[in-house]
Amino acid sequence: MRFELTKEYLDLLSEAIARQDNSWIQKNVCELHDADIASVLDELDVEQASFLYNKLNEEVQGDILMDLDEDLRDALIQSFSTKEIAEQVEQLDSDDAADLMSELPKKQVEEVISQIEDDETAEDIVDLLNYDADTAGGLMQKEFIQAQIDWPTNRCVVELRKQAENVEKIFTIYVVDENEKLLGFLSLKSLLFAKPSTKIADLYQNKNVISVKTDDDKEEVARIMEKYDLVSVPVVDLNNKLVGRITIDDVVDVIKDEAEKDFQMASGISENIESDDSVWKIFRARMPWLLIGLMGGVFGAQVISGFEGGIAEVPALAFFIPLITAMGGNVGVQSSAIVVQSLARGTDQFGSIFKKITKEALVALINGLVLSIIIYGIAYVFDSSTLGIVVSLSLFTVIIFAGIFGTLIPLLLDKYKIDPALATGPFITTLNDVLGILIYLTIGVLMYGL
Amino acid sequence: MRFELTKEYLDLLSEAIARQDNSWIQKNVCELHDADIASVLDELDVEQASFLYNKLNEEVQGDILMDLDEDLRDALIQSFSTKEIAEQVEQLDSDDAADLMSELPKKQVEEVISQIEDDETAEDIVDLLNYDADTAGGLMQKEFIQAQIDWPTNRCVVELRKQAENVEKIFTIYVVDENEKLLGFLSLKSLLFAKPSTKIADLYQNKNVISVKTDDDKEEVARIMEKYDLVSVPVVDLNNKLVGRITIDDVVDVIKDEAEKDFQMASGISENIESDDSVWKIFRARMPWLLIGLMGGVFGAQVISGFEGGIAEVPALAFFIPLITAMGGNVGVQSSAIVVQSLARGTDQFGSIFKKITKEALVALINGLVLSIIIYGIAYVFDSSTLGIVVSLSLFTVIIFAGIFGTLIPLLLDKYKIDPALATGPFITTLNDVLGILIYLTIGVLMYGL
Repeated sequence: MRFELTKEYLDLLSEAIARQDNSWIQKNVCELHDADIASVLDELDVEQASFLYNKLNEEVQGDILMDLDEDLRDALIQSFSTKEIAEQVEQLDSDDAADLMSELPKKQVEEVISQIEDDETAEDIVDLLNYDADTAGGLMQKEFIQAQIDWPTNRCVVELRKQAENVEKIFTIYVVDENEKLLGFLSLKSLLFAKPSTKIADLYQNKNVISVKTDDDKEEVARIMEKYDLVSVPVVDLNNKLVGRITIDDVVDVIKDEAEKDFQMASGISENIESDDSVWKIFRARMPWLLIGLMGGVFGAQVISGFEGGIAEVPALAFFIPLITAMGGNVGVQSSAIVVQSLARGTDQFGSIFKKITKEALVALINGLVLSIIIYGIAYVFDSSTLGIVVSLSLFTVIIFAGIFGTLIPLLLDKYKIDPALATGPFITTLNDVLGILIYLTIGVLMYGL
Repeated sequence: MRFELTKEYLDLLSEAIARQDNSWIQKNVCELHDADIASVLDELDVEQASFLYNKLNEEVQGDILMDLDEDLRDALIQSFSTKEIAEQVEQLDSDDAADLMSELPKKQVEEVISQIEDDETAEDIVDLLNYDADTAGGLMQKEFIQAQIDWPTNRCVVELRKQAENVEKIFTIYVVDENEKLLGFLSLKSLLFAKPSTKIADLYQNKNVISVKTDDDKEEVARIMEKYDLVSVPVVDLNNKLVGRITIDDVVDVIKDEAEKDFQMASGISENIESDDSVWKIFRARMPWLLIGLMGGVFGAQVISGFEGGIAEVPALAFFIPLITAMGGNVGVQSSAIVVQSLARGTDQFGSIFKKITKEALVALINGLVLSIIIYGIAYVFDSSTLGIVVSLSLFTVIIFAGIFGTLIPLLLDKYKIDPALATGPFITTLNDVLGILIYLTIGVLMYGL
């Protein structure tokens, strides 16, 4: 049975905490899966969470801490002594330990490290803290299993038993030479079913060994693990020495974050926020885009004011301004979203920019034709044949422009190493608004002979 | 060294195919990783790809076929005889085999199944074809390793050796009772390091065993695997009998697809498309949203036409129409994006709708105040104090409305089991456009006393 977090459960828990009912807590909280305990803590206030956290088995505390929402984790850590933090860190895998340490103030990091009892653990963490968080080095952990190529399998099992104490999940055994250079890999399955005297050299796979370098970007790592269907990937330094491994669970987070970031940017949100973040954080993430939108609107107003006389004479011209800007925005966002996603997927390496623009122009041409014919009929009934021609002609032009800009801008941004998702948001909508108004009113003034 | 697909490589390959240079192909294509071979084939035209595909080692053909772009795969399959398809299918894992079969016409499916030589394989595929593709049953494979709880570990190793022939990657051994009901799991690591006489019953883990049911939605499966950091998850039927397993690589695709689908919906694209899809497919995916946008624009025109007299008298009123609609759209999209993402993440189970709306209203209030003050100054300089008041007052109102609607609509859609990402796109922008125009011009007419 999977645990389900219900309102009733939380009410019972609050009461149990209030009356410090340890046996209820032991039976109904501590027996849960770590991930469920974390989701329970996330729903409590800091005092309740802190009380509950201290009741937990020490061995699971660290893992649960890493599973918590950042705000709650920070609050809990601030209530710990340096010694207590060091104890938590020692329970963690090295990658999680380094992540936790990197959230601490610099001064405290040194203190915590000096309090870690196991020297190897301390060294691993210090080493991992050197890498940029956005690279393979920043994602990797020091817990992995390696076997030397000249071992027989029975020696391998003995040696692995020693190494395996520290490695929670073994997926693959990495095979190295006497200088720890990566040569290939060995599955646990083949080790399990091999004869004791078989040499690793006769058992291991050395064809198409996929590894990543410590300075590979984390999104590159995600792409590689996805492409080659890997559950874990070895990390090597510039000298091909095996220094760590990255497991799929960390990469799933990278993949999700990347996709969510694109979506947020396209929606005009500049920081990674959730709906339970503070009002101030949400405000800060949204304001910059709204200011861009506001400035776009002011430019639009300026353009329209240039046609003030025309509008005074033919106020019907104003009717279709929102239609033109909305359609330009819609087409632009559609076009750029397709490009942004293709770029994120890493497909389309060889289609030239020219080919893409031609195709987008073709799609825009068809869309533009269909919509222009429809809107001509509507505007004709609405007001007059002249207005019908003005609206349909400018809608057609705007759709073509918006489609081309929507395709071109993210491609250009990407070429100059700027995140193309920037283009999908209010930025491209705003540009298309101003351009659309200009096209529409110019055609209007010309057609009406104003 | 990882393979890099370059323009030069593709040119050399085309030449080699043209002169049917088998030794070049053998050395430079067939030696590559399956995933790389697939990415090479994807860049060729159908004839070249088909020529190359037939040169490949039979054992890898099936896996490569599943890695190809759908269009190319369909083209290749159409060139195969039923017998050839059956041979490919037999090479595949059962989940991939079922996926491949589900792409065939119904009539051909039966023919292919009758041509499969191994009865068990045929049965597995027939069984998997029964499940809805969007459920755990549709994702799972029949290849997994199970051990009976009363076995000693040495018997377990012998039995597993038999089972493991068909299972490419073993992550976990599932422990079952004599009726194949799932009891727990055993890691390969603990089996590797156990004494031969130890009973499975003394070795396996039965606390917090996470499994999914065949009819669980695939997004629910993804959430569970992510939450509990699982590399594979056992699938049980309603009777808790173990019937399959799902591995993380299939779930990574679900996670990515889901995030991309939300992004595409928010950008006004109704089908999952890539930039190299056909013009017709791209047109079809985009047109529905553009029509919604067009209808919204026509409503907007109708609203403005109701104020024709006012605009004729004070044309400056028209200046800020695009600003109002753009800002309403921006705020609405921001608000709904935050809600959509939170819903997709499965967080925020207990915040009441009322609480969310209050918070969003608070953010909107601050945004509205800041932006209104700025725009008052600009509109004042631009035209007059009266226009300043009209624009800033209506901008403020529109921001509050857009924020509330942007939050409320996706929450309501979700409550009635409609995909909330629908709300983020042109739909919410269009609604806010019409509403914004109405608010702005009403305030304008009142303030100017028209």
